[in-house]
Amino acid sequence: MSEPIRERVLDHIGIAVHSLDQAIPVWEALAGASPSPRDVVDTQGVEVVFLGSGPGRVELLAPTRPDSPIGRFLERGGPGMHHLCYRVQNLETALADFAARGYHLIDTAPRSGAFGHRVAFLHPRTAGGVLVELVEEGG
Amino acid sequence: MSEPIRERVLDHIGIAVHSLDQAIPVWEALAGASPSPRDVVDTQGVEVVFLGSGPGRVELLAPTRPDSPIGRFLERGGPGMHHLCYRVQNLETALADFAARGYHLIDTAPRSGAFGHRVAFLHPRTAGGVLVELVEEGG
Repeated sequence: MSEPIRERVLDHIGIAVHSLDQAIPVWEALAGASPSPRDVVDTQGVEVVFLGSGPGRVELLAPTRPDSPIGRFLERGGPGMHHLCYRVQNLETALADFAARGYHLIDTAPRSGAFGHRVAFLHPRTAGGVLVELVEEGG
Repeated sequence: MSEPIRERVLDHIGIAVHSLDQAIPVWEALAGASPSPRDVVDTQGVEVVFLGSGPGRVELLAPTRPDSPIGRFLERGGPGMHHLCYRVQNLETALADFAARGYHLIDTAPRSGAFGHRVAFLHPRTAGGVLVELVEEGG
């Protein structure tokens, strides 16, 4: 059973920052929105905060340790856009669809992201050079 | 007169690609959307196409010559996320507001972007490492 073809909602843009405290005022003014509560994803070594509630809101990601994915991203190129996240209705179905279309999956099964959401990542190599996250609606 | 404080709508994400023809199928599947007509912005040496109609839609940007901003971006790091674009009600007011808050403006006055929209860019240095475009609603 395929995902229906319909315009996907951009849930958020993930932006890597050195410090949430320093980045929040910068992004409050850009996004015109206030920060959510924060969450730590310990397995990824990252602390996150969202600004805004609508599609295309901003997720700021700061490393909790230097040897984390976001820590290494910052070391390579400094702060900036890190990933896009699209909403999908069913994560297993979407992953199977993308795999069948030749997209390389980083996560072949859903895992738990910030705030307990069910998420999975596609590899930039087959996604136009962009790290793409999928999040299950209501998940 | 300040822009009212309210959540800004993310108009699109700009993604640099080598070839629109090759990138469109990749992004059709990711965004779940079909391509718009294309437009060339000759002053910027870029050809663009949009996928989707809602907030957070994708803008693909391919260089029409190597010595263009997108051509140099691709040479430095390959395809990937290039800029974010937020909608503003009035571009002059928004630029004055951002300047007053200490954001560095690339464009101190509106210029004509793809499809004739009135746009202006903020410098990544003071915008969290992200190239931020502003587009005037209905502009």
